[in-house]
Amino acid sequence: MAARPLLTELADYRPLQAFATQLQATSIEALFAADPARAGDFTLAAAGLRLDFSKHLLSRPALAGLLRLAEQARLPAAITALFDGDKVNNTEDRPALHTLLRATSSHGLDTEFDEVRKGRAQMRQWAQRLNNGEQSGFSGAVITDVVNIGIGGSDLGPRLVSEALRPFHGDISCHYVANVDPADLQDTLLELDPGSTLFIVCSKSFRTEETLTNSLAARNWMLNAGASVADLDRHFLAVTSNLQAAADFGIPAANCLPMWDWVGGRYSVWSAVGLSCAIAVGWEHFEQFLAGAEAMDEHFHGCPLQANMPALMGLLELWYCNFLGAGNHVVLPYDHSLRKLPDFLQQLTMESNGKRVSRDGRQLAYSTAPVLWGSAGTIGQHSFHQLLHQGTLLCPADFVLPLTTHTGMPEQHRRLVANGLAQSRTLMVGRSADAAREALLQRGLDEAEATRLAPHLAMPGNRPSSVLTMDSVNPSTLGALLALYEHRTFCSGVLWGINSFDQWGVELGKEIGTRILAQLAGESAGGDMDPATRRLMDEWRAAQG
Amino acid sequence: MAARPLLTELADYRPLQAFATQLQATSIEALFAADPARAGDFTLAAAGLRLDFSKHLLSRPALAGLLRLAEQARLPAAITALFDGDKVNNTEDRPALHTLLRATSSHGLDTEFDEVRKGRAQMRQWAQRLNNGEQSGFSGAVITDVVNIGIGGSDLGPRLVSEALRPFHGDISCHYVANVDPADLQDTLLELDPGSTLFIVCSKSFRTEETLTNSLAARNWMLNAGASVADLDRHFLAVTSNLQAAADFGIPAANCLPMWDWVGGRYSVWSAVGLSCAIAVGWEHFEQFLAGAEAMDEHFHGCPLQANMPALMGLLELWYCNFLGAGNHVVLPYDHSLRKLPDFLQQLTMESNGKRVSRDGRQLAYSTAPVLWGSAGTIGQHSFHQLLHQGTLLCPADFVLPLTTHTGMPEQHRRLVANGLAQSRTLMVGRSADAAREALLQRGLDEAEATRLAPHLAMPGNRPSSVLTMDSVNPSTLGALLALYEHRTFCSGVLWGINSFDQWGVELGKEIGTRILAQLAGESAGGDMDPATRRLMDEWRAAQG
Repeated sequence: MAARPLLTELADYRPLQAFATQLQATSIEALFAADPARAGDFTLAAAGLRLDFSKHLLSRPALAGLLRLAEQARLPAAITALFDGDKVNNTEDRPALHTLLRATSSHGLDTEFDEVRKGRAQMRQWAQRLNNGEQSGFSGAVITDVVNIGIGGSDLGPRLVSEALRPFHGDISCHYVANVDPADLQDTLLELDPGSTLFIVCSKSFRTEETLTNSLAARNWMLNAGASVADLDRHFLAVTSNLQAAADFGIPAANCLPMWDWVGGRYSVWSAVGLSCAIAVGWEHFEQFLAGAEAMDEHFHGCPLQANMPALMGLLELWYCNFLGAGNHVVLPYDHSLRKLPDFLQQLTMESNGKRVSRDGRQLAYSTAPVLWGSAGTIGQHSFHQLLHQGTLLCPADFVLPLTTHTGMPEQHRRLVANGLAQSRTLMVGRSADAAREALLQRGLDEAEATRLAPHLAMPGNRPSSVLTMDSVNPSTLGALLALYEHRTFCSGVLWGINSFDQWGVELGKEIGTRILAQLAGESAGGDMDPATRRLMDEWRAAQG
Repeated sequence: MAARPLLTELADYRPLQAFATQLQATSIEALFAADPARAGDFTLAAAGLRLDFSKHLLSRPALAGLLRLAEQARLPAAITALFDGDKVNNTEDRPALHTLLRATSSHGLDTEFDEVRKGRAQMRQWAQRLNNGEQSGFSGAVITDVVNIGIGGSDLGPRLVSEALRPFHGDISCHYVANVDPADLQDTLLELDPGSTLFIVCSKSFRTEETLTNSLAARNWMLNAGASVADLDRHFLAVTSNLQAAADFGIPAANCLPMWDWVGGRYSVWSAVGLSCAIAVGWEHFEQFLAGAEAMDEHFHGCPLQANMPALMGLLELWYCNFLGAGNHVVLPYDHSLRKLPDFLQQLTMESNGKRVSRDGRQLAYSTAPVLWGSAGTIGQHSFHQLLHQGTLLCPADFVLPLTTHTGMPEQHRRLVANGLAQSRTLMVGRSADAAREALLQRGLDEAEATRLAPHLAMPGNRPSSVLTMDSVNPSTLGALLALYEHRTFCSGVLWGINSFDQWGVELGKEIGTRILAQLAGESAGGDMDPATRRLMDEWRAAQG
């Protein structure tokens, strides 16, 4: 991609600042009063998902300005570049081909697509083999449990997908271990039998500290249970591009599935990194998951900006972060199965766009990625929603709201939906001090007490939210949902002028961690550390008793 | 408590603004260079916890100013009022007596303490009965599984404590169900046998929508499995103040444990709301948990501000939110067992202090509670730490770092500690563009490429964090840790001039939810809703097929 102007240099940046100032003096309810048609017009549909973005502090002219801004930032060209396999990851000189992982045709990238297809065939083979009960362990028992060992992109995606699609699970149970804290692996293994357990080690380099450490501990667990080194190939698969390191560990090439440099970890659940999911739900359902994502890809690739769901969501993110001063974004899945969605999105958005320089290395003078947080509704209603309604911060919200349940308990599920819709509405309408006072009088409080308490019950309202609905959570809509947020993240990155596909910021901490580890182990002195770190290392030594 | 002046009216507010401006022009590393003794001096110890707050953008004069500010805000008198049982919850005309729940003496509150002791005796009795295998279900089988049904304060606290103290668990497994989404209960019950399962229904009013709905579903599950209505008292306990509603449900008074108006839900894990924890870890460990909290209470109550750990942490929160512009606070427990700590703290801090009016109803013109978020280290390092290191937002961090492990794998645990210390240090020191360029040259890159990439590897540093250590996670240190954050939250609330013990902001959403539910059920028309909500209700109806 050619160098692009920065956000603040775009022609519509200043006019949008003026719109923002105007809109801060009005209310979303007033926008509805003046233009009731926005309820229908501020909606989009794609790939089984429907976005209602009508309850935003956004007018039609401001929306038009944002769309012009996206043109000025050359977003359409950037989308084309992404799908064409251009080296959009310019600092690592690579394309970002996660869309190819769910594609059914090559998009002109024949070499890579050929590898993708071979990888898919391997995944299918392993998933079917395990689901058919054809894989047995060292004792002859059939494999019944799969433990995915990975961290970050090799964990959060598969964990979310596996959990979200629980109603589609077959007989094999999948477990996830990520943390280098030995308690994570230990807690998981407590419930498992070595003879019927298979590990999938996910690490592109096969050198990730947490993953390698846990894999070695898992290997010892297996050997201590009576497996021989020769048996390990019955119990370990690897998803990696470092076949030699896997072989040294005891995993032969036949047990290795591929990862490629042109897929970032946080975009990799569609590859063999998602093998545990394919095993959990079966290959057909995994293909539906890929197909849902591909449908969103086609929408994103082909649809004009004004009807393009990821682009619109990216523009909304920009609107709140750069024009209205929000430093956070809250995602509220009203579905128990999607409770890990915020964790997944934290990595996707904050690792992709938590950057402070442009693609060409210029320091940015404006905000980039906000803190993304959230939890499942209605859990959050009894926790942090107090702050959403009456706090002093602007917290733009996404309600993710499946409209039916797989549980066979539609009446109880209706309560969930009613709560989700009510929270979105309540954020917008709020309650005036007069209305609060009236409500208190109706409860039988006297005038003085009602007047005293009314300010505490009053709520400012005018707090924005999107509502993202789907008929149900299934492999296809889940695929579309994750692809939607991937592309939204890409759009925001393009608008901010940054490379969303690198993560240089995590390197230094690893280097310093290695040095501190050597010092704690007594292998080197601590003279190169600051006084606080030295003192804390002493404290650690004292505690080892 | 008497009316207090607001934050911005305090004498030291403006001088602190000047300090903040000065400090923004310097760096934490420069503060260390000028004053290496801060590594030791900016530390505090209490109740088995140690706080290192040396890596903050805070000088000794600014700290002194903050301490004066706390005096001016009458924080010492507020602390006294809290422990004296004054009606610190002024909008509900109640004291907040959570400290009494872990007290070993009455503090002059004889009536309430008498009730606390009776409640404790009941908890002990039930915990011992269950742990001794003396409670059997309708089929004669001994109870082996306990399911806590509650939400918010009746869920997040017990869930955290139970999970954190897993190494202390006995034979009974505890499970937690909160969400009104029927999948939450259904997923949990899948693994359980009705004959050996006991439910604890936690709801002060016995009217909480989610809890009552789930409890009725659990009741049906039990009856469908062959229990009679008369058998229900073998399978259901309640923690409630509404004995009549519990009796109507089928839970006799003998199976009810108390809740009191003078304890808020988010401060209630020390009461019978924590019964599931007492069952999981046994009564003696639960008493140690209470004792750890009481030790922190004594510290908080008796210690001068300059050495008072909760007060210092409250002042740090204020410093970043109100003087340095942070809108969020990230909590990073470097311990797998504490991975739910951020969830718990979200409710504690954001429900307590997500307010926009003062205790006497004046609108506040300054920020109150930030968004609290986080996850277990090292998980976050492979997810959102990119933003912490290179993003554009100020994210003050708390590292919570136990120094030993219960797993018997100290070498692996050492890696966890090294990573935690390294992240805290890295946030402070960062890496200059020159140092980044040098590092790239050493990797063998040519001059041009090193120059191009250096800005992407550069990290500004100067990002603040606390490190909170303890020798290990055990009942006592866990009690101290939760009490610490409770009191920190109270201190911040006092400094902001708000009542941390009410939550009026959650009421309106419930009212609107009830109306929407009736409309979805076809029991009333939707004319009183906004156009967007009406359209979304239509969408829901269409999806019901």
